[in-house]
Parts: sequence; structure tokens; C-alpha cells
Amino acid sequence: MTATLQRLSFILFSASYVAAIWPLPASLSSGSSALILSTDFDVILPDNAPRDLADAVGRTKQFLSSDALGRLVPDRGASDKDAIGSAPALGSLVLTVTGDLKSIAEVATAELGSRDEAYTLTVPDDGSDATLSANSSLGLLRGLSTFEQLWYTNEAGIYTVEAPFDIEDGPVYPYRGFMLDTARNYFPVDDIKRTLDAMSWVKMTTFHWHVVDSQSFPLQIPGFLELSEAGAYTAEMVYTPENVADIVAYANARGIDVMVEWDTPGHTSVISKSHPEHVACPEASPWASYAAEPPSGQLRIASAETTNFTTSVVTALSGMFNSKYLSLGGDEINAKCYTDDAETQASLNGTGKDFATALSEFTNATHNTLRASGKTPVVWQEMVLDYNVTTVEKDALILVWISSEDAISVVEQGYKIIHAASDYFYLDCGLGGWVGDNVEGNSWCDPFKTWQKSYSFDPVANMTSEQAELVLGGQHLIWTEQTSPANLDSSVWPRAASSAEVFWSGPGGNVTSALPRLHDLAYRFNQRGVAAIALQPIWCALRPYACDLTA
Amino acid sequence: MTATLQRLSFILFSASYVAAIWPLPASLSSGSSALILSTDFDVILPDNAPRDLADAVGRTKQFLSSDALGRLVPDRGASDKDAIGSAPALGSLVLTVTGDLKSIAEVATAELGSRDEAYTLTVPDDGSDATLSANSSLGLLRGLSTFEQLWYTNEAGIYTVEAPFDIEDGPVYPYRGFMLDTARNYFPVDDIKRTLDAMSWVKMTTFHWHVVDSQSFPLQIPGFLELSEAGAYTAEMVYTPENVADIVAYANARGIDVMVEWDTPGHTSVISKSHPEHVACPEASPWASYAAEPPSGQLRIASAETTNFTTSVVTALSGMFNSKYLSLGGDEINAKCYTDDAETQASLNGTGKDFATALSEFTNATHNTLRASGKTPVVWQEMVLDYNVTTVEKDALILVWISSEDAISVVEQGYKIIHAASDYFYLDCGLGGWVGDNVEGNSWCDPFKTWQKSYSFDPVANMTSEQAELVLGGQHLIWTEQTSPANLDSSVWPRAASSAEVFWSGPGGNVTSALPRLHDLAYRFNQRGVAAIALQPIWCALRPYACDLTA
Repeated sequence: MTATLQRLSFILFSASYVAAIWPLPASLSSGSSALILSTDFDVILPDNAPRDLADAVGRTKQFLSSDALGRLVPDRGASDKDAIGSAPALGSLVLTVTGDLKSIAEVATAELGSRDEAYTLTVPDDGSDATLSANSSLGLLRGLSTFEQLWYTNEAGIYTVEAPFDIEDGPVYPYRGFMLDTARNYFPVDDIKRTLDAMSWVKMTTFHWHVVDSQSFPLQIPGFLELSEAGAYTAEMVYTPENVADIVAYANARGIDVMVEWDTPGHTSVISKSHPEHVACPEASPWASYAAEPPSGQLRIASAETTNFTTSVVTALSGMFNSKYLSLGGDEINAKCYTDDAETQASLNGTGKDFATALSEFTNATHNTLRASGKTPVVWQEMVLDYNVTTVEKDALILVWISSEDAISVVEQGYKIIHAASDYFYLDCGLGGWVGDNVEGNSWCDPFKTWQKSYSFDPVANMTSEQAELVLGGQHLIWTEQTSPANLDSSVWPRAASSAEVFWSGPGGNVTSALPRLHDLAYRFNQRGVAAIALQPIWCALRPYACDLTA
Repeated sequence: MTATLQRLSFILFSASYVAAIWPLPASLSSGSSALILSTDFDVILPDNAPRDLADAVGRTKQFLSSDALGRLVPDRGASDKDAIGSAPALGSLVLTVTGDLKSIAEVATAELGSRDEAYTLTVPDDGSDATLSANSSLGLLRGLSTFEQLWYTNEAGIYTVEAPFDIEDGPVYPYRGFMLDTARNYFPVDDIKRTLDAMSWVKMTTFHWHVVDSQSFPLQIPGFLELSEAGAYTAEMVYTPENVADIVAYANARGIDVMVEWDTPGHTSVISKSHPEHVACPEASPWASYAAEPPSGQLRIASAETTNFTTSVVTALSGMFNSKYLSLGGDEINAKCYTDDAETQASLNGTGKDFATALSEFTNATHNTLRASGKTPVVWQEMVLDYNVTTVEKDALILVWISSEDAISVVEQGYKIIHAASDYFYLDCGLGGWVGDNVEGNSWCDPFKTWQKSYSFDPVANMTSEQAELVLGGQHLIWTEQTSPANLDSSVWPRAASSAEVFWSGPGGNVTSALPRLHDLAYRFNQRGVAAIALQPIWCALRPYACDLTA
């Protein structure tokens, strides 16, 4: 198993140095030679390189010169000056691709499981050309991200003291994601782009964009502009179709697929502002009887008109995104909301259907509409575990969120899963309750999920090998009741990097040996303008293992 | 009691509007009239106004024009346009001072209890002059901070819809502080200045600067530059004497006294890098046997040379700060560090003294040196509760930190206290352990301290009225093992504003009615460049009480 080999190779080297690559490559060997980047260092593109690969190389060259990261040792690398003074200079990194030279975007948006991300990177210690080869431009992008992490800067130049490098790498799981909720609090496009940059640096593949919810509807959907006109917090707090196209292109060029979510039929209160006819129990009181959080409101699943409206929006929404995946939600449907809704009860009584049948038919309609747009449905776990819905097909991806222990029940039914469990991956837990008039309130998912916790996650716990094949990967998530642009970066980074490594490198990593690498990553993020938090005092960050519990 | 009156006046008004003043004034009445700021609005200074008061007025005028804060209602105040279109315009705020016109800095650095911060502010609703009067320039500064919080901005101008205002105000406690640790992680001067700005907006009086610790010594002390040369993380991560003078002047001009701390005799490992002769158990292993956190190291309290060195540094340090208060620490002294230190044991054996006697003498020497420099010693609670030290005089201020329940034991001994208890005021709790090799580690002071928790603090719990007189106030604190410039603002604000109100307005505030005001404060902080976090979804922030647990 690749993951085991990789751990072994890392442990062999970890005593003597920190190869600060994150996520850890499947196979890595390195040395102890100094090597500097030539002042005229260049990256040689393959012939007919697609534009987004050329752009990626441009970013790599920019980072090499602008990262200006001092090595995480007490003197920040100042004393490396002597060692590198006489070191060979690396003049070129030569890229070669062995497969069809499609764009990064094309590969990154292909079906999960069909995206070739593997690469081979060699950096000799004698100054002869470094080489990066892959079967796809996406593989080259992953290799470039690794190459960028090899270098430090001091007064004498840009250098490593760990040459030569030989790396064979590729991911264990294809889905490595991050979910951002832009409905509870709004995030400007630049915040999203900065997040996409950071995601790409740790080789993530999917931006799960929980774009709207009961609180606000910032997304402008062509043909349904009334939703955002009535539902965005302000006229400025919107994502226009141009913004969406820009975000999708930005993500794709960085190897990231944008999986948008329209959470239905719950979490749709805000739709009542433009379409009161489609929403049961809008802003009902007390909210706690009608929804998990205020305001309440759910699409009238038993109404033919509401079903038609919903499928029309799904079609329009699908047209805005090029991903093969789109989430239609399905979590936290409140029964009382429908029980107390006269229109829903009349519809059910008129047809003799029960709630499960109505929800099954609604789901069948929206999912089939999605498939007609060429997309695969994604749903939260309740849709296959809780509501007796009969119409979730096996092509769907199931997001396991309530507890990691629920994953087994989903794969037992033969569904594909994405790990997104609150007990490992919710970045918003443990910071106290946000509901008002509740002085001793805690977050529902206490305690705070540390990077160590998510790093210790086992994606295939208790599964047979057949069930394990159904695991596509996983992600960190942030629900933004208490998160705004003020604390987006610091809430997410570097914690979310821990799942990026679990699902790239495979489980079984050791938090003790990972910490120095994660420090390095967090420091590099800061050099690049992403405000990752400090995991320890600087004293500890500069002295691997000195602040271990047992040191 | 002022605090009771104030709560009553607030409750009477809270049903109909949000007077978003933070901290809540002792007495406040307001109306429902619209009033705009004239385009040539000006603030009229008293004759012979000191420079720092004129500067404060300049900042107020700048904030009035640059805050550009929309009211926290669903339309952000757009529909106020009609109401304010025909509203009277306020042309002037006239400042008058009835006492000696000393500078803000002079009043802000006077002895605690002698700083007059009271002010009276009236804003008529007919456009006639607003007036702000006080006995001191510091009182005027406090009133200006309040005045700034009355105004919102929409397309039609800068306005309020709650005129007239009549405010009589002054603090319940004189010490309202915030502690920043700049030793675990370093913070550039600009971060400190931005923090001082924010502190002044909520009328805090003391910046408790935990400037050095075992991990690093960023402070350049004239005559002892070797301490920072050997002990700063990098040559750039220092506070020069010029930086200190700049910070102190900046703070004082904003009504804030800078109480620096040199934590002794523990928490001094870093001194061993330049003065190994003065430090017992430097960087000993395992660290957990010798210190609360790595690296270990304590001043040799039984050594006459070390005592002399320490008092010399105290004198030099005192000369850098104009505050009448300076903390010499005294927490977490590790007994084994001295037991295992041959030099300390030889000193004790040679003189026949025990640990408590040696520590008492050391303390007496350093405290008397401090007094000779015109300063009052401040110490952590162990110095009067745990070590049998006989030489802490009753002039000292005692920082209660381990538990709020320890306050009573300190006042029972007749000492003055500053509330700084971890169970209410530590901003770094609840985010997981930072020590390495510790996958399930929690922070020692779990759980996370919400603003609601600190807001519910009672400074005089279980005290007699005589004991209550010994309470000078309190503060939030942040220890920066996991805090860096990346998350300083978001870790501190708006949470620390809750203690600012408790100690200005008095205890007994109601979290439910406070929340809309705290939202307003956090939004205004963001407009001013301080990244306070969102406490709730925007939907809730714009709808007071709609997200209460019982709504």
C-alpha cells in the first residue's frame, strides 16, 4: 500500500531533517546537499502547453521569488550562507507530459476517479536539470506545488540544503475538498479566490460552495434574479454570473472543481421573500420548533408548482457551473414545518401521499433534472439514512456530516461517500453558542476540532474492502454563523490542510512528525498572504520536537 | 448605585431601539428624532486645549466621516433617507472642561483612582449645539468615543434617528485592561497600535504588556541590549526604545496607561542565552518537570549576583515606561528547577535560608527597586497565596488569574486586586492543546470563554463591602502560544469588549439586550480596520432578538 511505504520513507528521514512538503508525497527521498536556484532559473514548458499550465508555471516562478521564507531553524537559515555559497545552481525545471495535453481545467473538472494527478519530480544535487513529468497537466500542477515547497530564502539566495530529491507522488483519494458557507455571512470574491489559492497549495480538488441558505441568497441566477434581489443581504453582497464564471475559471485553473450546493428542501426560508407561495413555515415562531436555526422555512415538497419551480432553478443553476457534481442538500428537514403548513397538508391529503412519498417524488424530480443537465446529485446523509426516501440512486454522492460513525451505514447501502463529519472536520465547533439569550450556550458540536483530531481520521474505519471502494475522499467545512472575512483564514488554515494530507497521502500519519511540516506550511501561507494561525510559539516552531509533550 | 440606575434606563428603552453605545453609559436617555451632521460640522475645543486633546478631536472628526456604518437593520438604513431629509442639522459639538486642563496623557498615567473619566454629553434634536463637558481632558476623550458611536451613514449623510441624547457617564472601576503576550509570538508595532486604538474605543485604561517570557526577549533595554540580541526571535522581532516610547505616547494619548511586565523569577529561560550565570535549569529536559511549558529556566533567586542583575534591569526597564505600575510577574515558579540547581542549593545551604525566605528577599529587593523608581509593584496571585512570601506589601496590585474563586482569598488578606481570571477572561482557552505529540490534548483552561461568559462576571462575588473596595477592575488577556498577527484581532474582538463594559458600567448586564449593541460595535470595529469577528449570521445581526433562543 502506497500510504504505508510513504510513512516508512518519511520516518526514516524525519530524525535528521524536515522535508516540509505538505501533503506528504507517496514516495520521497532526499539528501543533505545544498543547491541554489540560479538567478536565471526557468521552468521549461512542454510544447503546446495549455494556457492554464503556462499560468501555473508563472505562479510557481513568482512564488519562488516572493515566498522569501526563512528556514524554520533558530537562525532562520542565516548560517546556511556558507554551505550554499559554493553550491551548484539549478538552472531549469523541465516539464514533460506523457499523455494528452489537455488543460488543467479540463482534467480538474472530469469525473472523480478519472483525474490523473500523479507526477514524478527529480531535483539532482549537481545543478543539472530538474525534471517534472506527469500524464496530465493536472499532475504537472501538483508537482509544481511540491517543487515550490522545497525552497527557502536567505541573503545568499533561494536554496535547499536537502538535495537531491526524488519524488513519486499521487493521491490516495480523488475527492479532497473544502466547504465554505457564504449564506450566514457573506464573503467577497477575493476571499474566495484567496481560499482557492490556499486549497491548491495543498492539492485539494473540490470547492464545495454552500452558496445560499435560509439566511441569505447571494447568488444571482439568470432567470431567477428575484431570489437574490429579495434575498441577498445587500445589493452589493451578491455573486453575479460573471463572478461565478470568474471563480470557476480561477478554481479550475488551480486544479479545483467547484461543486455548488443549493440546499433543498430545507434551509430555504429566504426564498419566501420573492416566492412566498413555495415556502412552508417562513420565519415561524418559535424558530426552534420549525428549524435547526433561525429563520425557518422549507420548500413545499408536496406542491407540483413548487416542484416545477425547483427543477427550473436547478436547471438554471446547473448552467452556471461546469462541475459534474452539484449538491441539492437534503439535511435537517423539519417535520413540524410541513405538519403545520395548511397548503402542504392539503396537497398530501388531496393525493393520499405521505411525507416520505412526497419527498421521494420531489427528490426524483430534482435529481433527474440535474442528471439531464449532465450532473451527478450530491446529498447530505439524511437523504439515505433518515427520511425513507426511495429515489436516491446509487450514482449519488453522500455527504456524511452528523457523525463519522454514520459512514458505515451509508456504504452498507452501497452509496458512495464523502467524509465531512462534524466530529472531525467542522471548523466552527467549540467556540461557544451563537444563538442569543443563551449565556451558557455551547456550540452543538463541541469541542473545537484540532488539526491533530482531523489528522487522525481513518476514512475506512470498520469497512470491508468493498465498502472502502465507495469512499471518494473527504473535506473540512466551515459554517459561518461566527465566521466572516475577519476570521476566515484563521479559522480554516492550517487546520484544513490536515484533511488535505489525510486524503492525499492516506491515513495513519503521525501528528508528531507532521507538526514541523505543518509549521512550515503555515509560515509559507503567511508569506503568501493567507493568514494561517501559529500552531505554537515561534520558539517551538523553530525547534522541531522540542515542545513535544515528552520532550 | 449607578450600575442599577443605568440598567434600568437601558431596559426601559431597549424594547424600541438600539442605542449602540459600548460600554453602556451610567445614565442615558435618548429619543426618536432624526438629526443629521451638518456638512460643515465641527468640534469646538476649549481654549488652550492640550495637543493630545486636539488630536483626539481630529480622530473623532475622521471617524465620523470614515466610519460609513450603515444601521444594523435589514435595509442598512436606506429607508431612513426620508426621515432625515428634513431633519435639523447639527453644526457643532462644544467641548468644555471644568478642571485643570492637563493633557490626556497626564491624566491617563496618574494613579489609579485619581483619573477623572466622567463626562456629560447632550445632543439636542433641534440642531442647536451639542455639548460635551468634563472635569478633565480624559473625560472629554471618553465622551468623544461615545459621541462617535451615535452616528450612522447612508446616501443622505451622517445621521441618527435617536436624538436627542442626554448622557451622564463615568466608570465604576478605574482599571479596565487588556493583556497581550508578545513573547510566545511576536507582534509588530502596528498590531499593538491597532489594538490600542480598539481599546480606546471601548474606554479601556490599561495595556498590560507581557512583553518578554521564556521563549523570547524582544525588548531592547538600554544597558542590557544583550538580552534582546541573544533572546529576540530575529533581529527584526524587537521593540526598540524608540518603539516603546512611540507605543507609550500613542497609548497615553488614547487614555491608556502602559503597564509593562517582566515576569520573574520564573518564565526567564531566554535570559540564559546572554546570562547563563543567572538562570537555573535552562532548557532542561523533560521540560514538563521544570516548567509549565517549554523552555524551562528561572532566575537564581538565592544568588546575590542575580538579585543585583535583576534589580539593575528593573531600574533600566522602569525608566522606559511612564506608568506608575509595573508587573514583576511571580507566577508558576517551579520548585524542582531550584531543587536540582547546584548553584541555588549551594547558595541556600551557604546561608541557611529556605526557598520562601530566599524568594521573599529577592521579591523585597526587586519591589523596593521598583518603588525607588516611583512605581507600584504588580504581581500574579501565587506571590500572596502560594509561596509563603512575606515581602509583598499592601501597595501591590495582585492579578488573580488561576481561578476567579481565588479573588476572595486575596482580598481577605487586604490586597488590591485586578480580575484576570482564566475561567472568565482568557481569550486563548478552548482551542485545543498546542503542545506537540499530544493528539487528544486540550487547552488547560477549556472551554472557550465566550463574550457571554465574561459579560456575566461579578467582580465582587462573595465579598464584603470593605473587600469590594479592593477591587480595582479587570481585564481580558491573550497568551499567544496559538495567536500571531494572523488572528490577533479575531481572537480578541469583540470578546474583550465585554470586560470593558463590565468594569465601566458595572456588573449585572443582560446578554440578551447587550447583543445588538455588541454587534454594532463589532461592525464599527470592522469599518475602522479592526477585524472583530461576526457573532451571528448577518440575518441575526440585522434583526435584534430574532435569533434569541426563545424567539
